[in-house]
Amino acid sequence: MNSFGTLFKITSFGESHGNVIGIIIDGCPAGLKIEKDFIQSELNKRKPGQSEISTSRAEEDEVQIISGVYNGYSTGAPICLIIENKDKDSSKYEFVRRIPRPSHADYPAMQRFDKWVDLRGGGRFSGRNTAGFVMAGSIAKLLLKKLNIKIGAYTRKIYNIEDPNTYTVDVINENIEKNSVRTVNLEIAKKMEQVIMKVKLEKDSVGGIITCIAEGIPPGIGEPIFNSLESNLAAAMFSIPAIKGIEFGIGFKASEMKGSQHNDPYEIEPKTKKIITKTNNSGGIIGGISNGMPILFNVVVKPTSSIGLEQDSVDLEKFENTKINIIGRHDPCIVPRTVPIVEAMTAIVLVDFLMLKVLIPPVLKDDE
Amino acid sequence: MNSFGTLFKITSFGESHGNVIGIIIDGCPAGLKIEKDFIQSELNKRKPGQSEISTSRAEEDEVQIISGVYNGYSTGAPICLIIENKDKDSSKYEFVRRIPRPSHADYPAMQRFDKWVDLRGGGRFSGRNTAGFVMAGSIAKLLLKKLNIKIGAYTRKIYNIEDPNTYTVDVINENIEKNSVRTVNLEIAKKMEQVIMKVKLEKDSVGGIITCIAEGIPPGIGEPIFNSLESNLAAAMFSIPAIKGIEFGIGFKASEMKGSQHNDPYEIEPKTKKIITKTNNSGGIIGGISNGMPILFNVVVKPTSSIGLEQDSVDLEKFENTKINIIGRHDPCIVPRTVPIVEAMTAIVLVDFLMLKVLIPPVLKDDE
Amino acid sequence: MNSFGTLFKITSFGESHGNVIGIIIDGCPAGLKIEKDFIQSELNKRKPGQSEISTSRAEEDEVQIISGVYNGYSTGAPICLIIENKDKDSSKYEFVRRIPRPSHADYPAMQRFDKWVDLRGGGRFSGRNTAGFVMAGSIAKLLLKKLNIKIGAYTRKIYNIEDPNTYTVDVINENIEKNSVRTVNLEIAKKMEQVIMKVKLEKDSVGGIITCIAEGIPPGIGEPIFNSLESNLAAAMFSIPAIKGIEFGIGFKASEMKGSQHNDPYEIEPKTKKIITKTNNSGGIIGGISNGMPILFNVVVKPTSSIGLEQDSVDLEKFENTKINIIGRHDPCIVPRTVPIVEAMTAIVLVDFLMLKVLIPPVLKDDE
Amino acid sequence: MNSFGTLFKITSFGESHGNVIGIIIDGCPAGLKIEKDFIQSELNKRKPGQSEISTSRAEEDEVQIISGVYNGYSTGAPICLIIENKDKDSSKYEFVRRIPRPSHADYPAMQRFDKWVDLRGGGRFSGRNTAGFVMAGSIAKLLLKKLNIKIGAYTRKIYNIEDPNTYTVDVINENIEKNSVRTVNLEIAKKMEQVIMKVKLEKDSVGGIITCIAEGIPPGIGEPIFNSLESNLAAAMFSIPAIKGIEFGIGFKASEMKGSQHNDPYEIEPKTKKIITKTNNSGGIIGGISNGMPILFNVVVKPTSSIGLEQDSVDLEKFENTKINIIGRHDPCIVPRTVPIVEAMTAIVLVDFLMLKVLIPPVLKDDE
Repeated sequence: MNSFGTLFKITSFGESHGNVIGIIIDGCPAGLKIEKDFIQSELNKRKPGQSEISTSRAEEDEVQIISGVYNGYSTGAPICLIIENKDKDSSKYEFVRRIPRPSHADYPAMQRFDKWVDLRGGGRFSGRNTAGFVMAGSIAKLLLKKLNIKIGAYTRKIYNIEDPNTYTVDVINENIEKNSVRTVNLEIAKKMEQVIMKVKLEKDSVGGIITCIAEGIPPGIGEPIFNSLESNLAAAMFSIPAIKGIEFGIGFKASEMKGSQHNDPYEIEPKTKKIITKTNNSGGIIGGISNGMPILFNVVVKPTSSIGLEQDSVDLEKFENTKINIIGRHDPCIVPRTVPIVEAMTAIVLVDFLMLKVLIPPVLKDDE
Repeated sequence: MNSFGTLFKITSFGESHGNVIGIIIDGCPAGLKIEKDFIQSELNKRKPGQSEISTSRAEEDEVQIISGVYNGYSTGAPICLIIENKDKDSSKYEFVRRIPRPSHADYPAMQRFDKWVDLRGGGRFSGRNTAGFVMAGSIAKLLLKKLNIKIGAYTRKIYNIEDPNTYTVDVINENIEKNSVRTVNLEIAKKMEQVIMKVKLEKDSVGGIITCIAEGIPPGIGEPIFNSLESNLAAAMFSIPAIKGIEFGIGFKASEMKGSQHNDPYEIEPKTKKIITKTNNSGGIIGGISNGMPILFNVVVKPTSSIGLEQDSVDLEKFENTKINIIGRHDPCIVPRTVPIVEAMTAIVLVDFLMLKVLIPPVLKDDE
Repeated sequence: MNSFGTLFKITSFGESHGNVIGIIIDGCPAGLKIEKDFIQSELNKRKPGQSEISTSRAEEDEVQIISGVYNGYSTGAPICLIIENKDKDSSKYEFVRRIPRPSHADYPAMQRFDKWVDLRGGGRFSGRNTAGFVMAGSIAKLLLKKLNIKIGAYTRKIYNIEDPNTYTVDVINENIEKNSVRTVNLEIAKKMEQVIMKVKLEKDSVGGIITCIAEGIPPGIGEPIFNSLESNLAAAMFSIPAIKGIEFGIGFKASEMKGSQHNDPYEIEPKTKKIITKTNNSGGIIGGISNGMPILFNVVVKPTSSIGLEQDSVDLEKFENTKINIIGRHDPCIVPRTVPIVEAMTAIVLVDFLMLKVLIPPVLKDDE
Repeated sequence: MNSFGTLFKITSFGESHGNVIGIIIDGCPAGLKIEKDFIQSELNKRKPGQSEISTSRAEEDEVQIISGVYNGYSTGAPICLIIENKDKDSSKYEFVRRIPRPSHADYPAMQRFDKWVDLRGGGRFSGRNTAGFVMAGSIAKLLLKKLNIKIGAYTRKIYNIEDPNTYTVDVINENIEKNSVRTVNLEIAKKMEQVIMKVKLEKDSVGGIITCIAEGIPPGIGEPIFNSLESNLAAAMFSIPAIKGIEFGIGFKASEMKGSQHNDPYEIEPKTKKIITKTNNSGGIIGGISNGMPILFNVVVKPTSSIGLEQDSVDLEKFENTKINIIGRHDPCIVPRTVPIVEAMTAIVLVDFLMLKVLIPPVLKDDE
């Protein structure tokens, strides 16, 4: 149950306060140049302690290539990548077995795995496991580059601050690393930062929305019925902690539209002579299959469940209602650090489909 | 790619204008009484021609049990269920190869399968394939009954008419078959019917939102990371044509909330002495695992893409822009007929997880 | 658990005395001409009542194409093929629930599925299910033809009559349909037929060995470690009832050889300038991967477990030792009818691997 | 393609001369005491340099538990186990790209993965990867202990020395660690050792046969058709390098038997009142499902392909016939070190089936 994908399959292992966080990529084509610096730069976008608005846990998160790479190139064997866990302070986690934190996995995890579950730092439920997604996603991105497929995600909304615009991937990627919230418009970024700093002072947290766009996907990728592009992208997104919703294209607004408004009429793009649609309310996916337009979706990220304010909970030992105060190092808003994870999982899903359609072969040539 | 599930696995086959629509259920526990009347009654909720607001295609959709059942009970062998396609008028579908219908699968399907694709009546992309989901879902519901797990879905919104309330499954199921739009409040039902009749006259269509609730799921069902309850439910929902978004619990509204508002505090329910949460913003799922509260999610259904109004498209043969007029039998609003399909896929996902946790055994005893 | 394969995946359904025996092929490339006559001719090799040495059950076994084919070509959708069961006489099967037949699946089947199991005619354990393998295998063979890959299997041994020679596929296929035991040498065939007729008169049965050869497999097909060519071929073979052993190349004789005798030295074939091996003790597979030489393996088929002689068994109701006399229609030797099944499963495994290596694409061109 | 199993799933990674050999066990029940000493003792049976008849590569093969274990017990999360590679001498492996070794994977591996393949020490094709199988198998054995299921394998044959007897698991396990060839009879052991020492001096190698027995498997484990006990055990065995054949029960000798001889008649065991069979020609498996008798199979191990004698091969660069002399550290007979690997893979397959039938639950209680 800890694997995802068909031909480009990832297997996650490790715990937040265990020795390592790891990922195995089984099915990566042989002959891909594995650029360690690129993997690291992707990891750095996700790592803790990047700014005032993220957790103070100090981790270098330095990628180690354990297997599957020889002379700098993938061999076709499983690629194992890990980071070590160093700054572990597990002292605070024993009490959550007795008094589960609201909207944390403590209680359901103990229902699922009984007392055996490792809850230190969130264990398998910690966002730290997504470091593995980012490592695998960076391999996927290296493959997508060869097909000129580009992915860009950005923070669309934090609490009451929203950027209603949609951007091209180039514009997204030019701007999101220039501000700590990973949004495109720098004026809006400031407002979002202020909101986050304010709730941080309040010992509270906020949620938001991330938009993700993939450009360059050829038409014909995906499957009817099961394993639709939407099915697999959604399954991938809900493997990221804190994500509670996904909508493709115009999304939930489609409920208020007529077919004549929502349908995307075809036309021939005069310059390129390519078939495009005049609008992209479908988010680039029809019948579960790409139509050649940018793939576009939004995901909602709930407010960080770890907050400093006192909350109601239950003492499972005494079996009585009680209060809980959580002390720990947490992000007041997890949205900015979730942006690279959304990109990574999108890349992984797309590579899997492109391999199924043989647009990425199982063995690369030198010049691919 | 036409299978879904792990231990309770369904495989879909058939085409809208082929001989049959079929489903195979592999992994149904042995010893389940297969109530053919119940399967048929579930199918009848989905079948065309139920009222003025659905397509006039005349199909009896009579279930046939082909395999896996002996003396009225499941044997543990694959259960194959089919319905025949009788009222097929494929004359109108050859032209869509030349002029693809906007927001229909015609164009992406041809990109995926080339000219070989069967587009008659939508082929594998037709909503008619979901009859298989409903047949398999009815088997899943029979299993859930044994655990007192109840599922209810209803139309929350059609175009600009919305019912903001959430109901218990009993209330849902008492009401939705009393009105043609499958909503709970009969006053709201009338308004929704009026909206649909109006767009039907306009040769247009409308979308909407469906809410689905599952009560009685024990805590501890689901998995961290991949194969989370949310991942598998979402993947299941996006296998239903026209669904473009899903949100769990409070969903996209979480983006505008603080952690202190969104978190669901635990308490001991005074009467039952069960651990519950005061709110259910999480929709019954935390960390990918059920917490014992009702599972709750919304899905958005886009407006039917088949509309009678003239639309822009492209003539693929002449390779020039053109107009298209679609003549055919279609639902002006597919939301009401989607309600039983959402229930069916939810039941299928839940049974799969319950089997993984051994709450449903592979072989039933007589009295289970 | 009733599916086999990764990209070319088959799903078996149906029971010996149910309505149908069926198979679904999910992943067959779009654009394959589905030659119904060819499927039927393959089925005819397996069907009962071909000669004096096979069962007298009278079945036409006429293939019906239920889905996945349009205008005579595969569409990329699941292909469902069935045959009907007509000559069913289930009266004799209720007693086996009480007194299980030796070396029949009756007893283990009831241990696995409890009383719910359908044992009529052997149910899911009947050799009749392999009609589905032959239908799917005929589709696989049509794909292999495009790559000039040829498969031939033949009866190497019946009881004490053995043909020690190995043949090319062409020689095999020229001869095996000329005799009722499907062996190559017609003199040996006569002796084998005599042996079978003799045990038939004795109300007994005999086993044998089948050799299978596949020519034209390019080197590089298969995987190291799991999903080796040997692993998947063996798994496929053991899905055929009565097969109890498999050996590749020189097989068990390797235990008596030195490395200097067993190793297959490479050389350049003077005429074709291809790399070949001087011997083929490895059966064309090294490290789980094809080396370009013919793939060669033997399987042993146990004597038919249904015999007319009185046997010891247990009365499960009275829980005491007893005797059993089996009356029914059975083959005194199942080896000849198993030959086309071995070929079919071999073809299915090879197509799956060839698709994984993209030597068979997911969508065919017109001239492929 | 580097994973095996359904509910108890193992994923192999690492290379012979890479950093590590590793295995991930996904699906191990939570609550299992992970006895590191036991894993190590199992590993020690497989490790190189145990005696004069095995390779001189010096590796400690010390197991490291990387994830999935907390306070000494499995948590339900993926268990990652590794050993490091220390005594690597890769200098000798570059030439095999040019002159492939007969009956080694060099040539097919390059056909499969092109020049990207890592052939150092055999890479993914090395027997060293089976250290991962043994680590996972030791976890499986800990689970089987709880059900009193015992597995014993032993060397039945080396070259021309054969022990025709079959033993109980207790007798096997009492004796095989007392001699370097892991056979049961110590007289026969001496002869086998002499044979091996003789071929070692000749710079040659020999093969043999291993018998494996599993006692205590309840009847009803396995599946009809695909995923039969035989299918999965065979697939597991052929994932072990050098294994070229498998036969269950009486195996290939069944070809020379009549049904009346081969069938295993049922009887009630007078003392235990259990249903047994008088003979066990079926090897404990009928219809793909266990019948309660010991599971019994033989596998043939080919002679080590690395030999010191000069052999014929091809120079791929010059494209001409040539000679090859292999210098390296190799086992003259790999059979004894393969014995614990056969046991390990058997244990893994059995645990997977026992979990499917819920005889091993996903979460253990304290006293299980």
